[in-house]
Amino acid sequence: MASPLPTFSHVQQAAKILEGIAYRTPVLRSPFLDDRCGGTVFLKCENLQRTGAFKFRGAYHALVRKETTAPFHQVVTVSSGNHAQGLALASQLLGYSAHIVMPEPVNVFKRIRVEELGATVTVRPTRQDAQEFAQELVWRQRGLFIHPYNDVDVIAGQGTATWELLQAEPTLDAIVAPVGGGGLFSGACLAAHGVNPAIKVYGCEPARALDVRQSLQHGYVVQPDSADTIAEGLRTSLGECTFGILRDHIEEIFVVEEEEIVAAMRVAFERLHLVLEPSGAVALAPILRGESVLANKRVGVILSGGNISLPDFFSLSNQFSQTI
Amino acid sequence: MASPLPTFSHVQQAAKILEGIAYRTPVLRSPFLDDRCGGTVFLKCENLQRTGAFKFRGAYHALVRKETTAPFHQVVTVSSGNHAQGLALASQLLGYSAHIVMPEPVNVFKRIRVEELGATVTVRPTRQDAQEFAQELVWRQRGLFIHPYNDVDVIAGQGTATWELLQAEPTLDAIVAPVGGGGLFSGACLAAHGVNPAIKVYGCEPARALDVRQSLQHGYVVQPDSADTIAEGLRTSLGECTFGILRDHIEEIFVVEEEEIVAAMRVAFERLHLVLEPSGAVALAPILRGESVLANKRVGVILSGGNISLPDFFSLSNQFSQTI
Repeated sequence: MASPLPTFSHVQQAAKILEGIAYRTPVLRSPFLDDRCGGTVFLKCENLQRTGAFKFRGAYHALVRKETTAPFHQVVTVSSGNHAQGLALASQLLGYSAHIVMPEPVNVFKRIRVEELGATVTVRPTRQDAQEFAQELVWRQRGLFIHPYNDVDVIAGQGTATWELLQAEPTLDAIVAPVGGGGLFSGACLAAHGVNPAIKVYGCEPARALDVRQSLQHGYVVQPDSADTIAEGLRTSLGECTFGILRDHIEEIFVVEEEEIVAAMRVAFERLHLVLEPSGAVALAPILRGESVLANKRVGVILSGGNISLPDFFSLSNQFSQTI
Repeated sequence: MASPLPTFSHVQQAAKILEGIAYRTPVLRSPFLDDRCGGTVFLKCENLQRTGAFKFRGAYHALVRKETTAPFHQVVTVSSGNHAQGLALASQLLGYSAHIVMPEPVNVFKRIRVEELGATVTVRPTRQDAQEFAQELVWRQRGLFIHPYNDVDVIAGQGTATWELLQAEPTLDAIVAPVGGGGLFSGACLAAHGVNPAIKVYGCEPARALDVRQSLQHGYVVQPDSADTIAEGLRTSLGECTFGILRDHIEEIFVVEEEEIVAAMRVAFERLHLVLEPSGAVALAPILRGESVLANKRVGVILSGGNISLPDFFSLSNQFSQTI
């Protein structure tokens, strides 16, 4: 039986649990972006969240919700990205050991941060292997598995980013956020439409990982064909839970080219003085190209994460320097 | 006759004038920095201020204070740095034309931003030439000159950064801030000691521009010998006004090596997800090396600015990559 979908009240409860634990990240303004957008832009800076991404919200909230359900030996997940760091910190704060199973290719910068937070890391060659290994940990060693996005408590936790944004700016007309597995995005939908059903929630997806648009067209979850986008956080497919929410709430998908992602990272660096990783910059792209539906609107943009090493940032910037 | 020095109440009045105009920049935390410091660190992010640096505060406040004193044709200053941008924006917002005289070497990145804000830019080969040209503008064309730091209203405006920090965190034991011309720093002294005379205010100065330490030792304003530090904002000497305040309030100068500045920029990038220019990162260096006087203290750090182009950031990072 499928779990019931989370609701707005679930997001509000998550906000109470996260109060004083997750950072209330700043909402920044930029006249340059207002000009490019033709509207008024409010940037919710989740790159300034603990562990450098919104993921900490969902991980901590889910762990608090689940820790009393059954005894467990350690916290387990499959993630080579920001969920790994978020869950490692959540486990550390709540006094549990965490075991993070990472499928290749592993981002060494992120792996080091996970290990700094005291988590055990096991690397497996494929996602399939990683999932099997994690299942072993859950079954044989009484692990508590926290899914990166297809989990009602994770989704409710991620929704608190948008909920905070709307508390700071209650009269937004639109929210623009990246969609990968859909945890952040479906949380954004619940928060936005809980506050005001008229708010339009736009998803941003790399042209090289168009599974969300395809899933919406087909009416079921489609696996990405290739997903070799530089926005590594957006390579995953939706889950049943996130798809269920997204389908009912999403206004439109903005498709974003790789060049636009790097251009957005550059603008964030030079104009906003913020470091964004590719996934974290995707939602800036529709602003920079002046998407016509955003003109004259009050637009909230979720900058979802900033975990990128300096050499990787340089390398991406050089790689795309000819094309921008 | 010298102007009377500004006071804490002058800073508080400036805060009222700047309310809703300057951004109330966020105060961020970092467990990594707490660990390196051995204390508790609060980062006042003036790189996220309008025009990317605290300078907008003083420029706007000074212009508001002086605009009614006598009729003038345009606003004038000598600056190739962040004061130029701050004053250009302040002039634009208040409806005046601005003429910025820049001595060589000109930072093209900053010059472009100044021009984007509608200011006229004139470049002169030396600081002496630039000052003479600006004086011509003031005398012959009724210009209103706003000094980058040696001005009571500018100092009071810059003090609002520290005043906001202390409103957010009233129980700080210490403030660490960069010292160049001393506008930010003397404002920080007034704000800190207005709130609590026991707060220790530490200045940070590049080893390659040690004129502040020398000025304190000699008891008068010393011109820097060479000042070829990468922290271009800290190459200037103190003014009589900033020296007068600083001398009475400063606890100690932390001397910072060039390598430490670049290391601090890297840490800000990879750990804080913030872009800092060299001057803006100087105050992080004593935290990173664990200055013993800061151990077990609650320390406010002013990150003063983030105006650096991506190529310049790369180039500095590469230049110092062997040594860190």
